[in-house]
Amino acid sequence: MSIKIPRGTQDILPGETEKWQYIENKAREICGRYQYKEIRTPIFEHTELFLRGVGDTTDIVQKEMYSFTDRGGRDITLRPEGTASTVRSFVEHKMFGLPNQPVKLYYMGPMFRYERPQAGRFRQFVQFGVEALGSNDPAIDAEVISLAMSIYKELGLKKLKLVINSLGDKESRKAHRDALISHFHPRIGEFCSDCQSRLEKNPMRILDCKVDRNHELMGTAPSIIDYLNDESKEYFSKVKQYLTNIGIEYEVDPNLVRGLDYYNHTAFEIMSSAEGFGAITTLCGGGRYNGLVEEMDGPETPGIGFAFSIERLLSALKAENVELPVNEAIDIYLVALGESAKDYTVGLLNKLRSAGFSAERDYLDRKIKAQFKAADRYNAKYVAVLGDDELAENKISLKSMADGGQSEVPLDTFLEKFIELSE
Amino acid sequence: MSIKIPRGTQDILPGETEKWQYIENKAREICGRYQYKEIRTPIFEHTELFLRGVGDTTDIVQKEMYSFTDRGGRDITLRPEGTASTVRSFVEHKMFGLPNQPVKLYYMGPMFRYERPQAGRFRQFVQFGVEALGSNDPAIDAEVISLAMSIYKELGLKKLKLVINSLGDKESRKAHRDALISHFHPRIGEFCSDCQSRLEKNPMRILDCKVDRNHELMGTAPSIIDYLNDESKEYFSKVKQYLTNIGIEYEVDPNLVRGLDYYNHTAFEIMSSAEGFGAITTLCGGGRYNGLVEEMDGPETPGIGFAFSIERLLSALKAENVELPVNEAIDIYLVALGESAKDYTVGLLNKLRSAGFSAERDYLDRKIKAQFKAADRYNAKYVAVLGDDELAENKISLKSMADGGQSEVPLDTFLEKFIELSE
Repeated sequence: MSIKIPRGTQDILPGETEKWQYIENKAREICGRYQYKEIRTPIFEHTELFLRGVGDTTDIVQKEMYSFTDRGGRDITLRPEGTASTVRSFVEHKMFGLPNQPVKLYYMGPMFRYERPQAGRFRQFVQFGVEALGSNDPAIDAEVISLAMSIYKELGLKKLKLVINSLGDKESRKAHRDALISHFHPRIGEFCSDCQSRLEKNPMRILDCKVDRNHELMGTAPSIIDYLNDESKEYFSKVKQYLTNIGIEYEVDPNLVRGLDYYNHTAFEIMSSAEGFGAITTLCGGGRYNGLVEEMDGPETPGIGFAFSIERLLSALKAENVELPVNEAIDIYLVALGESAKDYTVGLLNKLRSAGFSAERDYLDRKIKAQFKAADRYNAKYVAVLGDDELAENKISLKSMADGGQSEVPLDTFLEKFIELSE
Repeated sequence: MSIKIPRGTQDILPGETEKWQYIENKAREICGRYQYKEIRTPIFEHTELFLRGVGDTTDIVQKEMYSFTDRGGRDITLRPEGTASTVRSFVEHKMFGLPNQPVKLYYMGPMFRYERPQAGRFRQFVQFGVEALGSNDPAIDAEVISLAMSIYKELGLKKLKLVINSLGDKESRKAHRDALISHFHPRIGEFCSDCQSRLEKNPMRILDCKVDRNHELMGTAPSIIDYLNDESKEYFSKVKQYLTNIGIEYEVDPNLVRGLDYYNHTAFEIMSSAEGFGAITTLCGGGRYNGLVEEMDGPETPGIGFAFSIERLLSALKAENVELPVNEAIDIYLVALGESAKDYTVGLLNKLRSAGFSAERDYLDRKIKAQFKAADRYNAKYVAVLGDDELAENKISLKSMADGGQSEVPLDTFLEKFIELSE
């Protein structure tokens, strides 16, 4: 029996990979304009990194990590997300000491979560994300949001909705936390066991609970927005002002929260409002995390970032019927007849390719008709035909598939002629 | 204590990632000319895939795999190489039935081997490889070799050596195998225990043994070249003829062998002859494997491919002092003075970036002198300076860093002016 691909993973095949390349190139190009530079961290890290960086009370860490022991006895985990690794690298390489601050990074690569596979959700998926480390300027918050929106928009998505919120600073979060505990405590017995244990550890996460989401206390829970102190309000209003300056529309959603302690100030999500996109409409999530670098034993360093999955981006493009401009045509196909002509095309093909052309020939000893059919399938702009007779007479026949125009060209100057034609 | 990167892995940081991007883009571009299309398979596979595809007697499988059990009880292994996964995917997606044959694929991504870390050798490394499946034409062998050489040459490597050999077809290999057994059998007791167990299973691998490489029987062992039957000789001579047609120099090395049964005909390696490159000079290894698709329960399908590590390629570039043309300059840096001017640059920066320019400003509330210094560090082609006064007068001052030329531009038409300037 043949061996199959592991459950929850996918092969990306020719015809699809070109779309991935297009998206990646576009993201890279836009990151260049925004001056975010690529960082590549390993596929696996010490498990402890994610316990600290993602948080040991999260579903990701408790239920979804690919963790194992390597041959040296180390506890290793395939990375479930990119921020913890990026911050680990930032601290390990002392990037806080670099002259260019803030340090603006992006990453793009596979992440791993052992979840139940379903439409559009994979155990291995590709995340693109950015992190800006070292600035507390609300303009950076707006920049990061703008970068995400630019990628989506320039790829052709139109049905986008940006939702933002502020979680405030430490003081504001503390006030909100106390209010949440007072709100839920008297009736916490009516909530699920997860929520009961969240009450003291992390009451904000109760608001995210899927089990209890219809409990009447949910709708009346105190909102973080009402607990922002003046500094936090001022910060949030600057972020909103800058978004308006940039021309990005947004909605404020006071229920958009982040459970982990080191998140603060700006939180945002970008959703697709395309019909038929599915129940989960979030494309991208991000926010500020001024406590994370310290949590990783680095110096106090503000940070903000986001991440999105390329798989979900592709689903959104599909839902909006966006065709990415992926070019499949080749420049020239060489049809050969006879043994000497076939041999000759090996060198000619190589010359064409070395000159920068995409070029193909037959490798199955096919008859001439089948070779012409292949040229069609490859969508060749030109077809050149060489027989043993032509070879003896130092000529080759060239046909433009665009206009049907045909000509005979001296074989020894064919490359020069073809370069001219293509200019 | 802060958490470190796992032993034997590396972070690739800004300054280095640009080189990786350049190499990857170049490889992708050349693959486009040769009509090889990208395939992306998962980072991990069922362990059995590599037992079958790489071979359960190899060092890779016996000593170096990152294998573990996932939460569903599956035996999973981080891929140690790319061919087995590619062939698995070829069979699983029935690519042998596609109209365009041979199927020409390339892959690029991280691979994992638990080896002792040393200079230039990592436990996670990135391999680029190609596989051409479905053709027995010696022109494909030459094409695959030419593709590898083109990538190296176009990146700027000059000190390259191509070594080729033929392992012949099944019949030839059988004859050679019998000769090897007769040669080593009488004195096999003088060899290491690995070689003793190789004698019956896979005598060709004795020739690769590092322990016994100086034993006198090694130098006198029968060479595969002397056991090629007529068909295999004819095939090999065609490959050599095509390499010559293409203008690629080669050496024939009868000791270049491949231990696994499904390898046959063409085997090749590309080495760096750059001084100071190190003891292991092989950059790239490849060859024909006409039995592998069947081994993976697919239909009989000839195949040939190669793989190389990007890390070793980078070492070779360094050894030859090749500087990749990586552009680090940004188009424009915006210097701002005063609160209103700073706020204004948020929108202006965004306009410049949306128009395709790489642009930056300050996010640390720095004084003007420090902002100018930053513009220098970013290698800005232009610096624009905006103060609250200029803002009130609807103007901005623009300085070309190339020629020092300075001008005042109306703020509301600045973008148009800058687009003109940059054309």
